[in-house]
Amino acid sequence: MPLEIERKFLVTGDGWRAAAHKVVPMAQGYLNDLAVLDRGEMNVSVRVRIAGDAAFLNLKSRELGHTRQEFDYPIPVADAQALLALCVGGRVEKRRHYVAHGDWTWEVDEFLGDNAGLVVAEIELPAADAAFDTPDWLGAEVTHLKRYYNLALAERPYRDWSAEERAATDAA
Amino acid sequence: MPLEIERKFLVTGDGWRAAAHKVVPMAQGYLNDLAVLDRGEMNVSVRVRIAGDAAFLNLKSRELGHTRQEFDYPIPVADAQALLALCVGGRVEKRRHYVAHGDWTWEVDEFLGDNAGLVVAEIELPAADAAFDTPDWLGAEVTHLKRYYNLALAERPYRDWSAEERAATDAA
Repeated sequence: MPLEIERKFLVTGDGWRAAAHKVVPMAQGYLNDLAVLDRGEMNVSVRVRIAGDAAFLNLKSRELGHTRQEFDYPIPVADAQALLALCVGGRVEKRRHYVAHGDWTWEVDEFLGDNAGLVVAEIELPAADAAFDTPDWLGAEVTHLKRYYNLALAERPYRDWSAEERAATDAA
Repeated sequence: MPLEIERKFLVTGDGWRAAAHKVVPMAQGYLNDLAVLDRGEMNVSVRVRIAGDAAFLNLKSRELGHTRQEFDYPIPVADAQALLALCVGGRVEKRRHYVAHGDWTWEVDEFLGDNAGLVVAEIELPAADAAFDTPDWLGAEVTHLKRYYNLALAERPYRDWSAEERAATDAA
């Protein structure tokens, strides 16, 4: 059973750009909205993503926080385009940069469109308490803040956030 | 873009059994419930199915009636078992019999468990008004009746239907 442990952080400055070894443009949307998960009417979110020349259907179980079951299947790009048109909420577009640091590769998502200005870094870990080197461009942790979920960004983009929402983090 | 035109009928008697050339046991569930589709919070239903030794993830767009977009992807059986445990509503179990008649193959679903007693026949057609021979075991059409959707049967099985619901059809 595939399990995923992810931690998500804000990014400060542009220091990560020099260490990025790959960038993939991504467009994605969700077949469900956030409310149906909050109401327990679904236990799994369903995402359609076009990443570069490939496309994927991704299912993620709902457990809030670090650990989730995740399932990812390649699908034809033409299917993904048709499914994106059937998504609720907005389309999230971003450039995903792969950034090596120590033993780990960070995924730095630079959002575009209605989410322009938001940059977050994610790391996938083998255990919730696994240690990792902290790059000097890493800001505060936002793993537990729902508004940073891509699903939430599809419904209520960064453009519409208040100054307080942009400043508050997990530690706050 | 895959399109599917299906018509669904009740089945009268056992005359179809002699013409069945294949039977596949199926267990399936849905990641969404029917209400989120009715409220327009999703435009696509997401089904997990184990069919014999294979498993599939199926997405179907919401247009009520004959014509829908449908997407079907093979997935590992272990994934399907994990996903079935995450489904909302109940699990629908049935035996699907493939029955040749004239130029067409009918899928006759003999439901089990909470839906035992229900037998329906489906045909997939190239156009909504395509002609087909009517087998003598074919009963009234129920294509448009939501309670016959497998998704509806997962939530409110045949066992719980009233005598009126069991008797009413599209023509009524």
